[in-house]
Amino acid sequence: MKRAMLYEGKAKKVYRTDNPYELLIDYKDEATAYNAEKKAVFVGKGQLNNAISSILFTMLHEAGVDNHFIRKLSDTEQLVSAVTIVPLEVIVRNVAAGSMAKRLGLEEGTPLSQPIIEFCYKRDDLGDPLVTEDHIRELQLATESELALIRQSAAKVNDVLSTYFDALGIQLIDFKLEFGHKEENGQLVLADEVSPDTCRLWDKETGERLDKDVFRRDLGDLSTTYQKLLERLGAAQ
Amino acid sequence: MKRAMLYEGKAKKVYRTDNPYELLIDYKDEATAYNAEKKAVFVGKGQLNNAISSILFTMLHEAGVDNHFIRKLSDTEQLVSAVTIVPLEVIVRNVAAGSMAKRLGLEEGTPLSQPIIEFCYKRDDLGDPLVTEDHIRELQLATESELALIRQSAAKVNDVLSTYFDALGIQLIDFKLEFGHKEENGQLVLADEVSPDTCRLWDKETGERLDKDVFRRDLGDLSTTYQKLLERLGAAQ
Repeated sequence: MKRAMLYEGKAKKVYRTDNPYELLIDYKDEATAYNAEKKAVFVGKGQLNNAISSILFTMLHEAGVDNHFIRKLSDTEQLVSAVTIVPLEVIVRNVAAGSMAKRLGLEEGTPLSQPIIEFCYKRDDLGDPLVTEDHIRELQLATESELALIRQSAAKVNDVLSTYFDALGIQLIDFKLEFGHKEENGQLVLADEVSPDTCRLWDKETGERLDKDVFRRDLGDLSTTYQKLLERLGAAQ
Repeated sequence: MKRAMLYEGKAKKVYRTDNPYELLIDYKDEATAYNAEKKAVFVGKGQLNNAISSILFTMLHEAGVDNHFIRKLSDTEQLVSAVTIVPLEVIVRNVAAGSMAKRLGLEEGTPLSQPIIEFCYKRDDLGDPLVTEDHIRELQLATESELALIRQSAAKVNDVLSTYFDALGIQLIDFKLEFGHKEENGQLVLADEVSPDTCRLWDKETGERLDKDVFRRDLGDLSTTYQKLLERLGAAQ
């Protein structure tokens, strides 16, 4: 059923299947950061991210957030709907951290008065730059109605995930989403992945990082961190 | 009448006057670029920028754009209303150039389908980063109604200046504005300067640069360039 590889990204390989409207995603053990300037392999990471993103996509689906996830196929593989990706990284932030803290001169950990949504243009060669809605319109990256749908869905994902993680004693600091149009019917849905590679998650009590910052900032072993996170999610099943 | 110096910027000195609601601006001969990493002195530049910005502010005032300019006082000095500056650089673009061309991977000179307004946070220590309206709200740099007024005024300035320069055979590529609240009555008005230090101006026939890019990119002598521009403006008086 797994056919030709369609695309190899930093953390995933994507394969065609017998069904033209379905793709297979194979999560890799590789971690990259800072636009792939920093790279490493963590044994077990692909399996952990596949498990975690399967749990989160399923949960989001049940909460009414349409997404590309169909089902988990194996330790590292999941089946998803084929989509044409909107070339925007959609970043939702509840607390200042990472690039936003640096850009605005805010101390990391500063709570925001309300969630902020940022859009970055998906262009590795340009370093995925922050763009405004004027830029998005000029480059025709998304229409105004698509942007409105994306904002609405991103806000819903934030509500659902924040509540979910909060109950596990984890604060959802920020996260990155991608959206795409289903090739089958054009529907705009959440795609890519939702995992500790794409979220900042801090333990509410200790402030411990439960996400890729552990790798970005050399705070420990990434697989051990993701295993801990999966265990906490598992406890919530 | 010129009293204590209030502030020295990269291209101007600002002095108090006997009137608490009026300030004196003295244009310097210094040019800086790339967040002041590049610096030079061009004899006569201060005088030229004072002359050019006096012409443009007067013309904008006559076109109904409220601004801080009161009158030219001497070769390098002008009298302005004292304002509290809104800490935003307001950039209006008609053609992709400079930082936007680089950010979005567009070739310099690509016409935009409609004018784009960008906001940068005035923070030298952060490199005046591009910000979104969400960032502006979070940092309380301007209220939504102030932003709406600023957008409206910036669009009007663009219309007026584009028409004016076009008649002189010059294309207005982009420009940077600053706004402030008059200390006398709180009115939000155009402030800072409007000059070839803050505009990109290209000869419509030859593409010759008539602005600070001549210095940024080592294309020639800045004072000679500004003198040429002033002569073309003078011809329009």
